[in-house]
Amino acid sequence: MSNEVIVIGHKNPDLDSVASAIAFADFKNKTGEKGWIPKAAGKLDNETRFVFDKFKIKAPEIIENLKGKKVALMDHCTMCQIVNGIEDAEIVEVVDHHNIGDIETSKPIRFHNEPVGSTCTIIASYYFNHKIAVPEKIAQLLLAGIISDTDLFKSPTTTQLDLDIKKKLEKITGINSKMLGAEMFKVKSNFSSKTTTQIITEDFKEYDLPLGVKLACSQAKTMNNKEFLSERGDEILKVMKELSAKNNYDLFVVIITDLFKEGSDVFAIGRTDIFEKAMDAKLKNNHVYIPGLMSRKSQVIPKLIGLKE
Amino acid sequence: MSNEVIVIGHKNPDLDSVASAIAFADFKNKTGEKGWIPKAAGKLDNETRFVFDKFKIKAPEIIENLKGKKVALMDHCTMCQIVNGIEDAEIVEVVDHHNIGDIETSKPIRFHNEPVGSTCTIIASYYFNHKIAVPEKIAQLLLAGIISDTDLFKSPTTTQLDLDIKKKLEKITGINSKMLGAEMFKVKSNFSSKTTTQIITEDFKEYDLPLGVKLACSQAKTMNNKEFLSERGDEILKVMKELSAKNNYDLFVVIITDLFKEGSDVFAIGRTDIFEKAMDAKLKNNHVYIPGLMSRKSQVIPKLIGLKE
Repeated sequence: MSNEVIVIGHKNPDLDSVASAIAFADFKNKTGEKGWIPKAAGKLDNETRFVFDKFKIKAPEIIENLKGKKVALMDHCTMCQIVNGIEDAEIVEVVDHHNIGDIETSKPIRFHNEPVGSTCTIIASYYFNHKIAVPEKIAQLLLAGIISDTDLFKSPTTTQLDLDIKKKLEKITGINSKMLGAEMFKVKSNFSSKTTTQIITEDFKEYDLPLGVKLACSQAKTMNNKEFLSERGDEILKVMKELSAKNNYDLFVVIITDLFKEGSDVFAIGRTDIFEKAMDAKLKNNHVYIPGLMSRKSQVIPKLIGLKE
Repeated sequence: MSNEVIVIGHKNPDLDSVASAIAFADFKNKTGEKGWIPKAAGKLDNETRFVFDKFKIKAPEIIENLKGKKVALMDHCTMCQIVNGIEDAEIVEVVDHHNIGDIETSKPIRFHNEPVGSTCTIIASYYFNHKIAVPEKIAQLLLAGIISDTDLFKSPTTTQLDLDIKKKLEKITGINSKMLGAEMFKVKSNFSSKTTTQIITEDFKEYDLPLGVKLACSQAKTMNNKEFLSERGDEILKVMKELSAKNNYDLFVVIITDLFKEGSDVFAIGRTDIFEKAMDAKLKNNHVYIPGLMSRKSQVIPKLIGLKE
């Protein structure tokens, strides 16, 4: 195995996972450890592409198989979210802000999980703690990643550290977060050119629950759920049923979050008994609106994973 | 659940796990998070008791069941090494320096694993990074913990951070590490009052290997293996067979490390094929001497865990 380390986020990459991979590789290379190379786990989503275009940053190459590589995982620590080939790769470092997943290693490695709003927050803090100047393009990416993952600091996952880091990055970049956030949200919630399948599978994660229950959970964010659902509502359940049949999900949950109303329309099919018990919610025609629900990570997944049948 | 957090090391506690629990609880309580309480996972070993007596520090209470508690794990992240009742407890934080084990959580938590010589090194670095003064008794404990886990900085697990932290703690405490280490080793390797079973089970850990293989691996350190084995050699295999039959181990490995010769006599019973293949060593009458072998964590466990049959 060469000394090269592939730095990579989760499958179905979002901005936080791609931006943190680029920044972490840069940070590592600057602390004297050479050969850290950022890669993308798949095609960039619209929001991520918008940010890369806006700041004229080159997107990382996509890697499709990690076999034989040394790998640093950003923004995930759950096996089924890692790019293929990980069984024959060596995990050498992990930085994440999710629940602790099922990754195990045979050797001691650096594993840093911190319950903050984004992985970009953690990587930015490394630069500041080590007194390493953040290059402007990296600062732009990190700030955009934090804005994206915290829904412009509205998500309940937002912490004081996210806000402190935001301020520092605004100072370096001269960016007004509110204005950048509004631009990003507009792109993120511009679904006109997309099929419902594309919308549902864009921010999509799988989990293995206890007792062999296979869960899929995706989230999409809009500026106005009412408008979105009047156009797409009927199709969502149809697409969910197709995807579930194809991939054998036992439970499939789709969260449509209204960024301005600050709540989510949630659709669930399959083992809806697990969903209803865990979320303490009653579905009607496989749908329920949950006010205040913004974060899959802190408000949905813990309840689904934690359920004891 | 109350807001109290039990800070605790692994079963069969050693100095590093007990000292880091006491220091981490103190550190947390000083950063504004109240209610962190150190506990011991079992009876203190001779070396740990010697250090507590020497510095007139009160030993933490033993806790036998974690049911219903919030828990911060020090120096371990492998389920079978946690005190009983963990299935009904909530893990809120982890600090460790071993391989990443099988702990999973439903919520995002802080999980910090760093491949350095001791967990005490990591906790000490928290005080220095946050510019919080290390109380003298905590500094004494931390330094003793580092000395113990790194075999006075001779273990291959020793890093530059361990050496840097050592220097800072020596300055605070006025301790000469070499002298303290010599005293501790004398206690650690004074086996005169102990049965062979006690010696073998003192620093004892279990692991679940792939394919359902149950491994037990213990380590004892002497100042002179030749002398020790001339007295106890015959008994070691006898005791291993008894323990293995009682606990259904598939593979049982005992490492007797000679701190001065800097090598280990290793005994293995059960699935010795796994041991021989993983360690690339040939047993003769279930025994092999391996020069340079000092660390179970970095030189033995990775090879045994990593083996693909």
